[in-house]
Amino acid sequence: MSAAGKPKRIRLGMVGGGRDAFIGGVHRIASRIDDHFELVAGAFSSTIEKSKLSGLDLGIAEDRSYGSYKEMAIREARLKEGIEAVSIVTPNHLHFAVAKEFLKRGIHVICDKPLTSTASDAKKFLKLVESSDSLFVLTHNYTAYPMIRQARDIIHSKELGEPRVVQVEYAQDWLSTDLENTDQKQASWRVDPERSGAGGCIGDIGTHAFNLAGFVTGLQLESLCADLHTFVEGRQLDDNVHIMLRYKGGAKGMLWSSQVAPGNENGLRLRVYGSKGGIEWSQEEPNKLWYTPLGEPTRLLTRSGPGANDAANAVSRIPAGHPEGYLEGFATLYSETAEAIYAARDGKSVENLCPGVKEGYEGIGFISAAIASSKKNGGWVKL
Amino acid sequence: MSAAGKPKRIRLGMVGGGRDAFIGGVHRIASRIDDHFELVAGAFSSTIEKSKLSGLDLGIAEDRSYGSYKEMAIREARLKEGIEAVSIVTPNHLHFAVAKEFLKRGIHVICDKPLTSTASDAKKFLKLVESSDSLFVLTHNYTAYPMIRQARDIIHSKELGEPRVVQVEYAQDWLSTDLENTDQKQASWRVDPERSGAGGCIGDIGTHAFNLAGFVTGLQLESLCADLHTFVEGRQLDDNVHIMLRYKGGAKGMLWSSQVAPGNENGLRLRVYGSKGGIEWSQEEPNKLWYTPLGEPTRLLTRSGPGANDAANAVSRIPAGHPEGYLEGFATLYSETAEAIYAARDGKSVENLCPGVKEGYEGIGFISAAIASSKKNGGWVKL
Amino acid sequence: MSAAGKPKRIRLGMVGGGRDAFIGGVHRIASRIDDHFELVAGAFSSTIEKSKLSGLDLGIAEDRSYGSYKEMAIREARLKEGIEAVSIVTPNHLHFAVAKEFLKRGIHVICDKPLTSTASDAKKFLKLVESSDSLFVLTHNYTAYPMIRQARDIIHSKELGEPRVVQVEYAQDWLSTDLENTDQKQASWRVDPERSGAGGCIGDIGTHAFNLAGFVTGLQLESLCADLHTFVEGRQLDDNVHIMLRYKGGAKGMLWSSQVAPGNENGLRLRVYGSKGGIEWSQEEPNKLWYTPLGEPTRLLTRSGPGANDAANAVSRIPAGHPEGYLEGFATLYSETAEAIYAARDGKSVENLCPGVKEGYEGIGFISAAIASSKKNGGWVKL
Amino acid sequence: MSAAGKPKRIRLGMVGGGRDAFIGGVHRIASRIDDHFELVAGAFSSTIEKSKLSGLDLGIAEDRSYGSYKEMAIREARLKEGIEAVSIVTPNHLHFAVAKEFLKRGIHVICDKPLTSTASDAKKFLKLVESSDSLFVLTHNYTAYPMIRQARDIIHSKELGEPRVVQVEYAQDWLSTDLENTDQKQASWRVDPERSGAGGCIGDIGTHAFNLAGFVTGLQLESLCADLHTFVEGRQLDDNVHIMLRYKGGAKGMLWSSQVAPGNENGLRLRVYGSKGGIEWSQEEPNKLWYTPLGEPTRLLTRSGPGANDAANAVSRIPAGHPEGYLEGFATLYSETAEAIYAARDGKSVENLCPGVKEGYEGIGFISAAIASSKKNGGWVKL
Repeated sequence: MSAAGKPKRIRLGMVGGGRDAFIGGVHRIASRIDDHFELVAGAFSSTIEKSKLSGLDLGIAEDRSYGSYKEMAIREARLKEGIEAVSIVTPNHLHFAVAKEFLKRGIHVICDKPLTSTASDAKKFLKLVESSDSLFVLTHNYTAYPMIRQARDIIHSKELGEPRVVQVEYAQDWLSTDLENTDQKQASWRVDPERSGAGGCIGDIGTHAFNLAGFVTGLQLESLCADLHTFVEGRQLDDNVHIMLRYKGGAKGMLWSSQVAPGNENGLRLRVYGSKGGIEWSQEEPNKLWYTPLGEPTRLLTRSGPGANDAANAVSRIPAGHPEGYLEGFATLYSETAEAIYAARDGKSVENLCPGVKEGYEGIGFISAAIASSKKNGGWVKL
Repeated sequence: MSAAGKPKRIRLGMVGGGRDAFIGGVHRIASRIDDHFELVAGAFSSTIEKSKLSGLDLGIAEDRSYGSYKEMAIREARLKEGIEAVSIVTPNHLHFAVAKEFLKRGIHVICDKPLTSTASDAKKFLKLVESSDSLFVLTHNYTAYPMIRQARDIIHSKELGEPRVVQVEYAQDWLSTDLENTDQKQASWRVDPERSGAGGCIGDIGTHAFNLAGFVTGLQLESLCADLHTFVEGRQLDDNVHIMLRYKGGAKGMLWSSQVAPGNENGLRLRVYGSKGGIEWSQEEPNKLWYTPLGEPTRLLTRSGPGANDAANAVSRIPAGHPEGYLEGFATLYSETAEAIYAARDGKSVENLCPGVKEGYEGIGFISAAIASSKKNGGWVKL
Repeated sequence: MSAAGKPKRIRLGMVGGGRDAFIGGVHRIASRIDDHFELVAGAFSSTIEKSKLSGLDLGIAEDRSYGSYKEMAIREARLKEGIEAVSIVTPNHLHFAVAKEFLKRGIHVICDKPLTSTASDAKKFLKLVESSDSLFVLTHNYTAYPMIRQARDIIHSKELGEPRVVQVEYAQDWLSTDLENTDQKQASWRVDPERSGAGGCIGDIGTHAFNLAGFVTGLQLESLCADLHTFVEGRQLDDNVHIMLRYKGGAKGMLWSSQVAPGNENGLRLRVYGSKGGIEWSQEEPNKLWYTPLGEPTRLLTRSGPGANDAANAVSRIPAGHPEGYLEGFATLYSETAEAIYAARDGKSVENLCPGVKEGYEGIGFISAAIASSKKNGGWVKL
Repeated sequence: MSAAGKPKRIRLGMVGGGRDAFIGGVHRIASRIDDHFELVAGAFSSTIEKSKLSGLDLGIAEDRSYGSYKEMAIREARLKEGIEAVSIVTPNHLHFAVAKEFLKRGIHVICDKPLTSTASDAKKFLKLVESSDSLFVLTHNYTAYPMIRQARDIIHSKELGEPRVVQVEYAQDWLSTDLENTDQKQASWRVDPERSGAGGCIGDIGTHAFNLAGFVTGLQLESLCADLHTFVEGRQLDDNVHIMLRYKGGAKGMLWSSQVAPGNENGLRLRVYGSKGGIEWSQEEPNKLWYTPLGEPTRLLTRSGPGANDAANAVSRIPAGHPEGYLEGFATLYSETAEAIYAARDGKSVENLCPGVKEGYEGIGFISAAIASSKKNGGWVKL
């Protein structure tokens, strides 16, 4: 920290994330953990009444709880102490329209994944962000776990030799029944093509798996061969995803994501094998990374432990054995974004590892390719 | 949350926790996670210069960084918007003196453990708090993990039948060498009788193990038989603790704590066996609780999972499989304290599970008894 | 055991399994564990000298160590106390020719997998066995683990509801380098198309994975879509196998097998998810079966433990917590075969779960389909 | 194996181990696994009728099933092809009397633990064996697990530096209720002072824990401080054991053994920490050894894996990842005994690691000291 002291907290707004929402609360906690943000405004719901109630819950000044994101963007941009950044935590189909209003007014955007619900929106989104001076971060939060950063570093420094095999999976069980026909709000929009897009499970969690594998290995997906399926009767979108992967340079992979796998709570797991070693990581035990140099015993690398490297230590808060979890990983994305915003205040820019619009665009491309492959009964489709 | 909206954040001060300290940072993050506190003042170090530098790091207004806790207590008590609560994160020998200054001025105290460095201070501390109108919370943070709350509930509701055997341990490895002779600040005060008291490992982590076992089982320790030892040459305080336990009502136990056990990072583990079942929990995988009804297969109970009970769910933030960690557990203590402070603002009081001065006093009694037993070569000593 | 006492041990011969071989020794131990067999003859190597040396190691009478399996079959069939059964543990390409000599002389055959090195041999093999009065057992040994038997029973009794997703994998790392170019005998024949057939990894271990998934679920594979690959330069056969599976009735699956995955020793793992629950099993911890009824906590079912069912208990030898391993599972196949041979002595037949020629034939069909799919770049191929 | 070929199998007898017994069957399988023994005679039960029935089950010639061990010893010693060794698997109180009959007739003895049911027998036993030319092996079978051999080697070669802390435990749950009042034969003799001796849980499994800790560390116990307890009402012997340990040279330890700990099937676990590293091992996952060099990441050493050393490899049968279990460990004791008997046939002797009468005598001393300490309410008692 510079002698100049801690920078003033970033004024943050939020679109979506009202009562009953899950991910909005996560973003709020994540924004607070390292004390770089202050939530001061929001369009938490689609009606002004509901939005104000949520604002009240959150201690937001009444006149800064908005009934529409557009109104919020217009007014906050004019306020002297208006928001500098906004978190978008709406269903997918709104991401683009909302982001546009803020980006064009010079407000930085932190947006939940997947980027959009349609490929055409994704293309426009890419252009929009690339032509904007504002920052855009897509919360593929799993990339920010310390041991994921270490895994990435291990692979990028060629400690595994040439990557050969990538096995990634993301399995859950909460949609094993037709939960969407109850009043479970989390379920209903996720299986609705209008709000989620053409991908169900593949969009909701498959994109996380795809993104994580790419982030850690640095490999570019060349083509894929997919079999998407819906097991729960009446459901409109896929709830199980089987994909074979071919990466540029010759590595091969498999991706499984499912929301109908009883016993799996949030089973995101990544295994990468190269000519000189292998690594294994599981999101439910995020402080551990298993590393096997070929021909040697497997090592258990722990966050902040004796085998932790600089990449991991840079995003760790507390000592080994004191588990950091999901919220801390999420918070790291916020904090890296904050550093970028601090720099932007001074007209500077900083490098960081936060996923952005490019990763979001690739994610939508991944969804499209998988759906295309599956529709034509499984042939290889180029990305 | 009431329709009246979120209460105003509690104005918090801190004593200790300057640059290089570990636990101060933990308290600060914990205080922010659920957004009930705002850190506005501090006596972070023993000199005004250092304190102001830490204050600068933390975004504290310059005139509220103090060089002495007494000055801080006096001035903050007089301010119109002075602190309502203070976190004490100094070495143990200062806890009592610091707490006294704030408690007597009506400022609530959140204090790190162990309560004091001497038994006589502990007794005075007990009286002081009992005669005070202010709240006092001792941060035995491990009691606030959701699955610990569930374990407690399982035992209190007699699902294990009569408790018979309690195996608790807390093993670390970071003091396996004479780290205190390097410039590692965390090590040096912990092995210094002046600042820590007569107990080394037993005070630093043994008390956590003792407290946790009592919290979960509800059992009162009747007597103990201890063998404390110092393995690292030149060290003044114990670094390995072996204790046999006898609880009122007939349960027996063992407590091991060590800071010289290579491979153990923060290995706090609790196992309780009763006439009808058993439970096992490990701090390094805090979201899991293993529960075996006698004669049935072991169940894996997970935080927010299908077997989680009300006690666990009440202190969980996010869904199953999204690991919460050490900071969230710590934050729960802060949030329960906040609820009590909110009530106190209205002259009300609320029940909660936060450890207080009684638990702190018992902890010092435990340390004293263990040292006494060990000194007389291991006989049973009553608590 | 009947009052008539223990039947006389079955006189067993062996083809293959000389010095340096791995699986021959396994068969021998497996045949002894439950004391139903006595090894009395063998054609352990392809020369009479080597065969006699191996026979000497094993305590075989000199005149019953043969230099050719044909000679052995002829002579043993004529001996009054000649062998009743033979174990075939040669490289794959010899299985059929060897089995033929014994089967046609009324000698029961226990044969290692995969059935043959070519599809045409497999077809002939199927006919041969079906027209023979002798017993034929294919040692897909993993089917005999107690918790695999329990998993099968759970699924067959519909406790998981309708099976939806089958994730099976078999990963090893021992062929991560070109071990075949050293004098490692285990490696050299396995990657030689002449001796192994057209499949490398897929034949050696992929067939085990395929077989196990079918055994446990009872599902028939309808079609597959494969991507086989050779990572180690100069190797002639595949060393990594990615396959998507479609089962009759609508279940979907994935199969990964690899011999180039550093950190995986013998990583055969099976996960099956249905509409009402899921199970998970790993060969390296064979005494455990994880079972999750949908919406309930996961149970850890253990061999001989409180949740073990009849199917598991029928093939367990010792109490819970006393681990049985690979050799015991293998021994169970031998013992079930022995029961069938005892019955055959009396002209009777018994039902058992031992894999036979049908499973072997399906395995070769699986290999062929996978190679065909992979060659045409991944389309779905019917079985 | 020498060019001379496999030695003739050792003719083995058994005392005890009739129908319903557990450990007799284990000994029989163990004796067969490596093919060094042939069971040819037995006094399986205390009546000739029952003994013959068991003999029939086992394929023993009728005239070699005896109704009394003495008769068996006398007759077998006279037979030309009489037994060379005998396995004693009776309740504890008979070990000495039985062994005496065979040892004095030159028949080698393999005896289950604990050595005897009384300290006076143990002393006599020690003298008897020391003055005998025959071999005596006590089946502390857990010492023969490969990774236990590796652990021993790691410690003996000072890779952990000076041993400091030994945590050993052996927990089961099968006696959590008064099973002895049902017709469970395994339970009834184990809690009967007449047949087991003055120790219950401490004799049955505590001695295993004590022995294993000594075997692995090479440390001699100097004194102990114990708290033995009986939780199940009406039970005559202890069912839970808490002991603090002091080893010669300054290491300290704790031993917990319990048969009333629900969820523990056969939970023998050993952890040893020294000045330079630590190891952890659990009997229920015997193929794994966790090894942490101080200040480095923990390594997972696996049986036959890349980190396995000569000591482990010498007693391994099959490759890494193919789990060996309890029976194989037990078999190793038998095979090491066989090598010693083969040598004895030629009048030679060989060194091996099999526990013998000395270890048995120490075990009885351990039981006596623990009971003495517990009776006088926990003071330190010298061994």
